[in-house]
Amino acid sequence: MITIEVVLSPALLHLSKVKDKNVVVIDILRATSTICTAIHHGASSVKAVGSPDKTLALADSGYLTAAERDGQKLAGFDMGNSPFECMEGRVDGKKIALTTTNGTKCIEAVANEGARNVFSGSFLNLNAMARYLAQDGAPVVMLCAGWKDSFNLEDTLFAGALAQAVSNLVNTEIDCDAALMSIDLYSIAKDDMVGYLKKSSHYKRLSHLHHEEDMVYCLQHSVFETITGLVDTEMKKI
Amino acid sequence: MITIEVVLSPALLHLSKVKDKNVVVIDILRATSTICTAIHHGASSVKAVGSPDKTLALADSGYLTAAERDGQKLAGFDMGNSPFECMEGRVDGKKIALTTTNGTKCIEAVANEGARNVFSGSFLNLNAMARYLAQDGAPVVMLCAGWKDSFNLEDTLFAGALAQAVSNLVNTEIDCDAALMSIDLYSIAKDDMVGYLKKSSHYKRLSHLHHEEDMVYCLQHSVFETITGLVDTEMKKI
Repeated sequence: MITIEVVLSPALLHLSKVKDKNVVVIDILRATSTICTAIHHGASSVKAVGSPDKTLALADSGYLTAAERDGQKLAGFDMGNSPFECMEGRVDGKKIALTTTNGTKCIEAVANEGARNVFSGSFLNLNAMARYLAQDGAPVVMLCAGWKDSFNLEDTLFAGALAQAVSNLVNTEIDCDAALMSIDLYSIAKDDMVGYLKKSSHYKRLSHLHHEEDMVYCLQHSVFETITGLVDTEMKKI
Repeated sequence: MITIEVVLSPALLHLSKVKDKNVVVIDILRATSTICTAIHHGASSVKAVGSPDKTLALADSGYLTAAERDGQKLAGFDMGNSPFECMEGRVDGKKIALTTTNGTKCIEAVANEGARNVFSGSFLNLNAMARYLAQDGAPVVMLCAGWKDSFNLEDTLFAGALAQAVSNLVNTEIDCDAALMSIDLYSIAKDDMVGYLKKSSHYKRLSHLHHEEDMVYCLQHSVFETITGLVDTEMKKI
C-alpha cells in the first residue's frame, strides 16, 4: 500500500513531511521536462541552481550554463529552458547548470530534507516513473512548482496522471484532497491536454513568448523510459 | 467584466490582493455555512473570534458562545459549530461569538485588509450570493479556508460553483488557474455532491464524529436568499 500526497505549491510544502519519501518535483512547463530531456539525451548531469549569478560562475568548472526567468532565456547563457536545446547531441556528455523561475527552486528546497529520492517529473517518462514508484513502495510526495507559489493547472494535471498511473499498478492509499482533485482534473483533461491547457495562465504566458512547440513537446505521454533523479547534488540518470 | 480569483488556502492569501474587492470566505464544513444559517434564522450578528478564551470572555457582553476545534464542540460553550444549533428560534435576536478551527481565522485574516465586502460563503444561499456579486461588479476573491492550511475538496467545490454561477449571469474574466480548476471540479461533482465528498478527508473526519446530518445540510443548493457579510466587525444580514 503506497500513500500518495500532492503539494499544490512550494508555499504549502511546510505542511508535508518528505523525509524518507519519494519526492517528485513537477514543473511541467518547462524545467523538469527539460531536465528529463537533457538526461535522456546524454547529459551527464543537471545541477539546479538558485540564481543566474551562481549559474554563470559554474562555467569555469565545465558546465553548460542555462537560465530562464519569466519564460525567457537570459542573455549571456549557453541555453534557456527549452527541451529542444537539449537535443541533437548538444548536451551529450555535458554537465549543465540550470536556473529557472520555479522548478529549480523546488529542487533546491527539497534537496536537503532527507527524502529517499528526489525525481524530476515529466509526462515524457511518466509510465517508467510510475513503475519505479510502484516497485519501490515508499510513500510518494508530489511537489508542484506552480508559478511563483501560485497554483497552476499543468503541474496539477501531471500529479493526477502520475497518481493514477501508480494506482493502476499497486494498491494506493490516497487520503489527501489535493491528490484526489488532481486525479479527477486529469480525468477531464487527459484526452486533449494541449486543448485543455490553452485556458491556463502559463500557456498564455508562454504562447506570447512563442513557446508553443515546447509546450506540445512537454505534454507528450511516455515517449522515453529514462528516469532522472538527484544523485548527491545533481540530477542524473537513475 | 468581473474578474474572479480563487485562493486555495489561507497560506496562499499573501499572493492575492483583496483591497476593494468582494471577498467570499469559504469553510463549507461547517463554519461559514453555520454563520449563514444563524443569520438566516434571525441571529443579529456572528462575531468570528480567534481563540476559545476570547470567545468565552464575550459571554459577559451578552453573546452566545460557540466553539469548535478539530470537528468537536468544546466543553463549557453554549454551542459548537453545527448549523442545527442555530434553528428553531435558538439564536433569534441573539449575538453569537464563534471560534472554529479554520473558517473564523480566515474571516479575521481578511477583516482589516480593506476589502469592499467580506461575505460568508455557503451553498445554502449560493444563487443569491451570485446575483449580488454579479450586480455589484467588483472583482471577486474567494478564500478557501481548507483544513489547517491544507487544500480541501468541499471549499474548492463551492468556489467553483459560485464562480460558475456568477459567470452564468455576467461576463467574467478568469485568468486564475485555481478558479478554472474549481469550476471543472464542480462540474464533475455537482450532480452528487454528497457522494463525491465521501472520499474527502474532512468528510471522513466528520463522519467519525457523527456529523453526517450537518454535511448533508451544508451541501444543499440555494435553500434561502439571506446574504451574510461583515458589517464593521461582525457578520450580519446584508
